Amino acid sequence: MSTPAYDELTATWSRLHRLAHLQSIAGWDQAANMPPKGVEARAAAMAEMAALLHRMRTDPKLPQQLERAEQEPLADAERANLREMRREWRQANALPESLVQRQQLAASRCEHAWRTQRPRNDWAGFLGNFRDVLALAREEAALLAAETGLTKYDALMDRFEPGMTSARLDAIFGDVRQWLPDLVQRVMARQGREAVVQPVGPFPVDQQRALCEQAMRLLGFDFEAGRLDVSAHPFCGGVPEDVRMTTRFRADEFLGSLMGTVHETGHGRYEQNLPRQWLGQPLANARSMALHESQSLSFEMQLGAHPGFVAHLAPLVAAAFGPHPAYEAGNLHRLLTRVKPGLIRVDADEATYPAHVILRYEIERPLIEGDIEAEDVPALWDAKMMELLGLDTRGNLADGPLQDVHWPEALFGYFPCYSLGAMYAAQWFAAMRRAVPDLDARIGRGDFAVVFDWLGENIWSQGSRWSTDELARRASGEALNPAHFRAHLEARYLG
Amino acid sequence: MSTPAYDELTATWSRLHRLAHLQSIAGWDQAANMPPKGVEARAAAMAEMAALLHRMRTDPKLPQQLERAEQEPLADAERANLREMRREWRQANALPESLVQRQQLAASRCEHAWRTQRPRNDWAGFLGNFRDVLALAREEAALLAAETGLTKYDALMDRFEPGMTSARLDAIFGDVRQWLPDLVQRVMARQGREAVVQPVGPFPVDQQRALCEQAMRLLGFDFEAGRLDVSAHPFCGGVPEDVRMTTRFRADEFLGSLMGTVHETGHGRYEQNLPRQWLGQPLANARSMALHESQSLSFEMQLGAHPGFVAHLAPLVAAAFGPHPAYEAGNLHRLLTRVKPGLIRVDADEATYPAHVILRYEIERPLIEGDIEAEDVPALWDAKMMELLGLDTRGNLADGPLQDVHWPEALFGYFPCYSLGAMYAAQWFAAMRRAVPDLDARIGRGDFAVVFDWLGENIWSQGSRWSTDELARRASGEALNPAHFRAHLEARYLG
Repeated sequence: MSTPAYDELTATWSRLHRLAHLQSIAGWDQAANMPPKGVEARAAAMAEMAALLHRMRTDPKLPQQLERAEQEPLADAERANLREMRREWRQANALPESLVQRQQLAASRCEHAWRTQRPRNDWAGFLGNFRDVLALAREEAALLAAETGLTKYDALMDRFEPGMTSARLDAIFGDVRQWLPDLVQRVMARQGREAVVQPVGPFPVDQQRALCEQAMRLLGFDFEAGRLDVSAHPFCGGVPEDVRMTTRFRADEFLGSLMGTVHETGHGRYEQNLPRQWLGQPLANARSMALHESQSLSFEMQLGAHPGFVAHLAPLVAAAFGPHPAYEAGNLHRLLTRVKPGLIRVDADEATYPAHVILRYEIERPLIEGDIEAEDVPALWDAKMMELLGLDTRGNLADGPLQDVHWPEALFGYFPCYSLGAMYAAQWFAAMRRAVPDLDARIGRGDFAVVFDWLGENIWSQGSRWSTDELARRASGEALNPAHFRAHLEARYLG
Repeated sequence: MSTPAYDELTATWSRLHRLAHLQSIAGWDQAANMPPKGVEARAAAMAEMAALLHRMRTDPKLPQQLERAEQEPLADAERANLREMRREWRQANALPESLVQRQQLAASRCEHAWRTQRPRNDWAGFLGNFRDVLALAREEAALLAAETGLTKYDALMDRFEPGMTSARLDAIFGDVRQWLPDLVQRVMARQGREAVVQPVGPFPVDQQRALCEQAMRLLGFDFEAGRLDVSAHPFCGGVPEDVRMTTRFRADEFLGSLMGTVHETGHGRYEQNLPRQWLGQPLANARSMALHESQSLSFEMQLGAHPGFVAHLAPLVAAAFGPHPAYEAGNLHRLLTRVKPGLIRVDADEATYPAHVILRYEIERPLIEGDIEAEDVPALWDAKMMELLGLDTRGNLADGPLQDVHWPEALFGYFPCYSLGAMYAAQWFAAMRRAVPDLDARIGRGDFAVVFDWLGENIWSQGSRWSTDELARRASGEALNPAHFRAHLEARYLG
């Protein structure tokens, strides 16, 4: 049957996909390779490409084509693909090209300067660029809110996590706020009685790199379709056919980099295993950022800190750095499940992590809604770190609001996805245990494929076929249920 | 005064420049980083971008704008910029978009497969892809010839070396053919009486890399605006603000990589020092490929093999690999000026190098004109290598027609630029010696800035302001005069 409008749309989206490929590789290069004097020219080039893609997504021909295609006789998957096109179209058309271009430029400048401002604790210098980034984000939020009928913050969050609202988040995070502090206290009291041997450095960077690559292989990362490199802030970029993961190394500490790599490998395998026959179309995109984080946290927390997995990781660590009691499997597991409030989100354990996210959510939401200003951030940060984790952060901006790349890059509304991802990951493993009753024993035997197969079938291969709630129901029998996360923490840390 | 058409044109060329930036970085990445499974998606993305740039250069609005701008009151430099726009426009508009896209795809496939076919000596496998590349190049040549009135081969060469013709080349190369064999024989006879100590490996790659970077620093390369990486075939890519040089390392030999890096540094400094105030406009482009090669060969041959420069390079080599009689300055200079016919063009000394170029010219010219076919290349190669350098190459395709990246990438008409570049380089140093009578003494004292200043003022900062002949006259008082190259060889090797 003939579907001419739909066919024109898929051709347009293939072109978008191909040009976005170059944008993605150049973005990775910017973080992993680019020397300092390249910054202005690259920012101009990235802004030009963003404007071009924006023009393609706002082509006046598209509304008619979308309407016509919606009347055409499409298969179910094609109809889902069309729904995602419509979603992308709606988002892009709420924004004028000049705004997209100014945002890209401001974010690129702010992010690049941030790389040297953070180590210098230079909040004042950062503020100069960040005010521009924030002003433009508010402009964007107002336009998206008008388009969607959502609040300004929800309209930004909707870009990453369609269907999630701050009303729903308030309920979820409100619940976590009730039981988390007590749980953390009980876990710390219990762990205080355990003996843990600390690893002793230095840990040569070459060995760390080799160890990270071994862990990636253990986790099934395809090195024929991706790489591991170094950047200031680890991320997983590139394209599904060529995934570019990054990490960072410190000679005095290796677990942060190793488990950060395990985390990014979860993102990487999701990308590498999106539905091949749909690549280039929106249907082949990862469903949402919370689902993306559910994959990285399935890898880092659910599997990566599983005693059965750690038993297979331990000998690789010992081989990398030489034998040491710290690398004995039981001790390594205790190291990986240590609960202790700290300043840095990306170094946080899975029990205190939600506190970092709640803090950021409670700052970035009023920041976008216009209830507070950029210069109010440090005082709020200090107050909330004391309240949530009992930590004094005054004067230490580098390990405070300057620690994340998200705000300089204008990724407002992204942080909640991390904790939603942790909750989904717990929900996936609960479903897996129902489907595979001997799951833990099989992981202990090194049969990790059972995990990858379940994730591949239920999450990776589904791309954006379903809404997030529907995907969760199909995979696990229910929409997001944070009780699984609490049960996971209680079983692992207090069981 | 108002120049609306010219202003529109400069805005268009700025956009072209910004998008080409991403193409250039992705091209570097393809050679230096990309894993094998990325090849199809990258080829599609590069083809999409090439088609997009082609559409911009063939925008039906341009002819009118160019005509109108030619009537506007422009400054001399603006008028030269407009002349270069017209040249680019003429070249792009001779080619239909579909051809550009098919060429990009065919070259990308052929080049990627070539990387594994060359070490396997797999000419048959290469031929499958190369026939497509050649067929498309002939199609292009026919269209460009019709547009310019040049012969097919000259029309391709004109893309790299505007103004050069095969008639002029026949005269130049015909002259070289007369005196070169005898000169090589006399040099070899003379050098046969000299004692040369060979370096003894292995040469650890990390030390080689550090040595190459030291040499680049000695030569003034700006590492804040560029990098050195590894690829199968060394090249200098990226953008003027962020130059991406590559090299390759062998553990058993270091001079090839070191002097290859010195060579690419010449390209890199030309790019890094093009006129900043014009960047983004055609006036800021390097004048031609022969002029580009004249910079790499000014660095590699004129300066790099100068006894005064070698005296400063020698201690760096000794520091990298430990003291050895081979690294004594006089011996290192003898190593760098050894004349010996060999199979590999990029390893050839400056005296036998023209033979490699003449051979390729005599094969690719009839290949493009349709007088021979791709499958005729190996036999012709064997015959000409025997005739020109007395070497038997039968059966060794890897070190024969598979050795260069140019043909897989459809760079027909490029090879002559190497020898023209060597001739220009000799001409520049002859002019420099007239301007700075104590040039050689100053190089011996490590005052290399005198060379960089002359090149910067006369070549780099001029961009595409003048025609090649005019640039040469302004820099050295005369258009290309190959007598300087012969005089240089006689002075260095027989003086």
